[in-house]
Amino acid sequence: LNTEHGFTLGELARLLDIQLSGDAEIKIHGLASLESAGKGDLGFLSNPKLQSRLSDCGASAVILHPDLASTSPLPCLLSLDPYVSYARASQLFARRRAERESVAVIHSTAVISDEATLADGVSIGPGAVIEAGVHIGRGAVIGANVYIGFNSSVGEDSHLNPGVVVYHDVRIGARVILHSGAVIGADGFGFAKDGRQWVKIAQLGGVCIGDDVEIGAGSTVDRGALDDTIIEEGVKIDNLVQIAHNCVVGAHSLLCGCSAMAGSARLGKYCTVGGGVGIIGHVSIADGTVISAMSFVNRGIDKPGLYSSGSVLQSGREWKKNAIRQLQLDDMARRLRELERKLGE
Amino acid sequence: LNTEHGFTLGELARLLDIQLSGDAEIKIHGLASLESAGKGDLGFLSNPKLQSRLSDCGASAVILHPDLASTSPLPCLLSLDPYVSYARASQLFARRRAERESVAVIHSTAVISDEATLADGVSIGPGAVIEAGVHIGRGAVIGANVYIGFNSSVGEDSHLNPGVVVYHDVRIGARVILHSGAVIGADGFGFAKDGRQWVKIAQLGGVCIGDDVEIGAGSTVDRGALDDTIIEEGVKIDNLVQIAHNCVVGAHSLLCGCSAMAGSARLGKYCTVGGGVGIIGHVSIADGTVISAMSFVNRGIDKPGLYSSGSVLQSGREWKKNAIRQLQLDDMARRLRELERKLGE
Amino acid sequence: LNTEHGFTLGELARLLDIQLSGDAEIKIHGLASLESAGKGDLGFLSNPKLQSRLSDCGASAVILHPDLASTSPLPCLLSLDPYVSYARASQLFARRRAERESVAVIHSTAVISDEATLADGVSIGPGAVIEAGVHIGRGAVIGANVYIGFNSSVGEDSHLNPGVVVYHDVRIGARVILHSGAVIGADGFGFAKDGRQWVKIAQLGGVCIGDDVEIGAGSTVDRGALDDTIIEEGVKIDNLVQIAHNCVVGAHSLLCGCSAMAGSARLGKYCTVGGGVGIIGHVSIADGTVISAMSFVNRGIDKPGLYSSGSVLQSGREWKKNAIRQLQLDDMARRLRELERKLGE
Repeated sequence: LNTEHGFTLGELARLLDIQLSGDAEIKIHGLASLESAGKGDLGFLSNPKLQSRLSDCGASAVILHPDLASTSPLPCLLSLDPYVSYARASQLFARRRAERESVAVIHSTAVISDEATLADGVSIGPGAVIEAGVHIGRGAVIGANVYIGFNSSVGEDSHLNPGVVVYHDVRIGARVILHSGAVIGADGFGFAKDGRQWVKIAQLGGVCIGDDVEIGAGSTVDRGALDDTIIEEGVKIDNLVQIAHNCVVGAHSLLCGCSAMAGSARLGKYCTVGGGVGIIGHVSIADGTVISAMSFVNRGIDKPGLYSSGSVLQSGREWKKNAIRQLQLDDMARRLRELERKLGE
Repeated sequence: LNTEHGFTLGELARLLDIQLSGDAEIKIHGLASLESAGKGDLGFLSNPKLQSRLSDCGASAVILHPDLASTSPLPCLLSLDPYVSYARASQLFARRRAERESVAVIHSTAVISDEATLADGVSIGPGAVIEAGVHIGRGAVIGANVYIGFNSSVGEDSHLNPGVVVYHDVRIGARVILHSGAVIGADGFGFAKDGRQWVKIAQLGGVCIGDDVEIGAGSTVDRGALDDTIIEEGVKIDNLVQIAHNCVVGAHSLLCGCSAMAGSARLGKYCTVGGGVGIIGHVSIADGTVISAMSFVNRGIDKPGLYSSGSVLQSGREWKKNAIRQLQLDDMARRLRELERKLGE
Repeated sequence: LNTEHGFTLGELARLLDIQLSGDAEIKIHGLASLESAGKGDLGFLSNPKLQSRLSDCGASAVILHPDLASTSPLPCLLSLDPYVSYARASQLFARRRAERESVAVIHSTAVISDEATLADGVSIGPGAVIEAGVHIGRGAVIGANVYIGFNSSVGEDSHLNPGVVVYHDVRIGARVILHSGAVIGADGFGFAKDGRQWVKIAQLGGVCIGDDVEIGAGSTVDRGALDDTIIEEGVKIDNLVQIAHNCVVGAHSLLCGCSAMAGSARLGKYCTVGGGVGIIGHVSIADGTVISAMSFVNRGIDKPGLYSSGSVLQSGREWKKNAIRQLQLDDMARRLRELERKLGE
């Protein structure tokens, strides 16, 4: 990766607020892994054990821990946490690219209600539709063909990518990123049974999304039945994740791709939910819980720690032999107990 | 939740066709749970065991069973099934909100073929695209940026939310709700192997969706290979559900979030499929079957009842010890049998 | 299914480049299974064991193996691989339908940057948005409300269905089909932890999609962190599939619905991944591997073959008894070993 107009190493040191060791005038055009870095690239060494890779690395400079600076064959940016500095540097390069592409404009084909209010510096793409009562905060970017329903709001510097749909009465905080295909505020899945018919329970609550939340492509967060569904600040949600009505996702938690929370489940703060995990409804998960990929959370968790379920990969032949025994487990346990009893006699 | 213009208790009794006990002039602005209800709210008591909660409930009135009316400290609406009456009441409040927001208009930026036919009272949002041969029934609402392909039809009073995509030759019944991100009629996943290449099997069938179906955000229903994929009347499908080509979903069945049916699977009527369930292709599931969340339905089911698979949540340490034994199950069963033989001697 | 303007049997033989046995002037209006075929339909017999079904089949003609031609009661198209010929025939009928519907036009409501380049014969639907630096190859079809971001490219004869979103710097090959709701190039899920906050790692890589790839409705392929995410030629991806950043999907592999690959996973060529499968990050799967539905691939696979995990469906009553034993497996194994030791003494 190369951006046409990069930074000097000195500029990067200043922007990242870290020390520099080497020529401040070196031109940096992009970021790269140590393996693939070439001239003009900035690499990063987050694992000190991989220091030997610097010797044949083609990068023009590298982010590393100050302890390693003296032995580095390359010019360095010195960071106590090189991985975090890499993350911050990546944002600088992404922003530079974005600046070349976009200027804050309200595209003429956007359909914006007279009763919506737009703060300064808002950008609205072609075909976007903004309904009455909507407020868009300063500097927010609303992509092409986005829909924002009645009385919803979007905070400052938030970015809704093309095709995002936000239903009515949804509050979105500042610096929120919603990726394409995300749908916020669709009806929760609620029905009452009247004889043999399902009667729809209209979903009268909303959705409230805190500051600095990111929600991935194709993910869905349903509106609440009566109260709001809540995504607290700093939560990061990957692609194709389903958050059902009246869930609460605690601040700074991560939900990986294809995970799902059923209705009224509460996830604590600082949790990590692996990919493909399913969490049943009406349970609470303690702050700081980690759930490994593809687990089924069929009960609440009141003590933080690592939790797992899910089965282990086998060859098809082995699986066929072993899987059938799953049906005999209780029988096996009883027979084992009986043998123990006999031998104990 | 409060709506600006609510109902009197008397109006609600009349609209819900149930009896009233108390002042008919009480103003009701919204619905709420007993816990959070305040002045102007209507609560509901669906579980008689929770009757004690009425004593300190702030609601202005409550829906409850006639047997409990005499001891209720609050004005009541009397219903033999308070939960169903709550569902019907929720629709009244939702409709009032919707009426304030929308009037049936064909937005000037919608692109509608001269060869499409629109019945009276149809509403079409900005940027919607309606192709030739499409018929839209009376009172249907087509949201912003919806696409409806050639020769498809949408029944009376159906509601397609913003961004829904309906491919060609799809028939959608009356009072159907499709949520944003839903895609109806994309190609089924069919290929023939020619040597080492995949040859696409064009999907020449359509999709047929019955009356009163609801399909959640981001869910996909593929068109059939030769015959149609069929969703029968009254089916309710949650978010991010995948229905493959030539499936048949029986009337009034529920599919919860992230469940999936593989090609040509047939689900009976009045079934409940839990979240994250996967059903293999070419099997039939009996009417009235219930499948618990995260189960893998790897065979047909000919007898209704509850079915499950899936593993049980454990601490990471316990899981590590136990999971490895899954690979030894058959061996353990054989050794157990051998011990029994020896002890029998 | 019937198309208004079909083919004669002779035309089909010529277009499919196979032999004909029977009247070349027979009119064929559509394809159908042997069970449902009627006058004007062409059936196909891919399984020779089902030959007896020809006797009461209503089709006007049938595709079958030359060995069966002499005993066929129906006019035949003779193919060494009738299923592949059926696939090719299905494309002929689909193309004829498509020709009647669409002509290559740039719709007046599409918003196309002056700095985009469009080859001859490109069709762009209403409301589509094409940013600067985009190149669209000859004959490509860009559906209604599609978004294509800065500097992305679409190869010849590719087809992006309505509502598809392609972010910036994505390269899409020739004859690629993207279904509605697919999102290509959204940000990979990458964050660095800075104290108790997540710092976004801007995703500076792109996505590269080879020729003849098909990607299903609602599926997501994220852009890479530094290098590209790669989908090689001929790959077929079903609906609601998640491909995380920096994955590599080998040529001609199939991924069925709701499967997912976590970051930097590498799937070999000619693999088949069943529905609902989850593959963890940073592993490699050998060419030609087959993974059965709903499996959890929690490690790399270096030897091709069939792999499975996942549990077996049980009645709810049986499951309740057996599932609890999953928690005792290690204990059972130890007790079994102890019994063996005692009996061995």
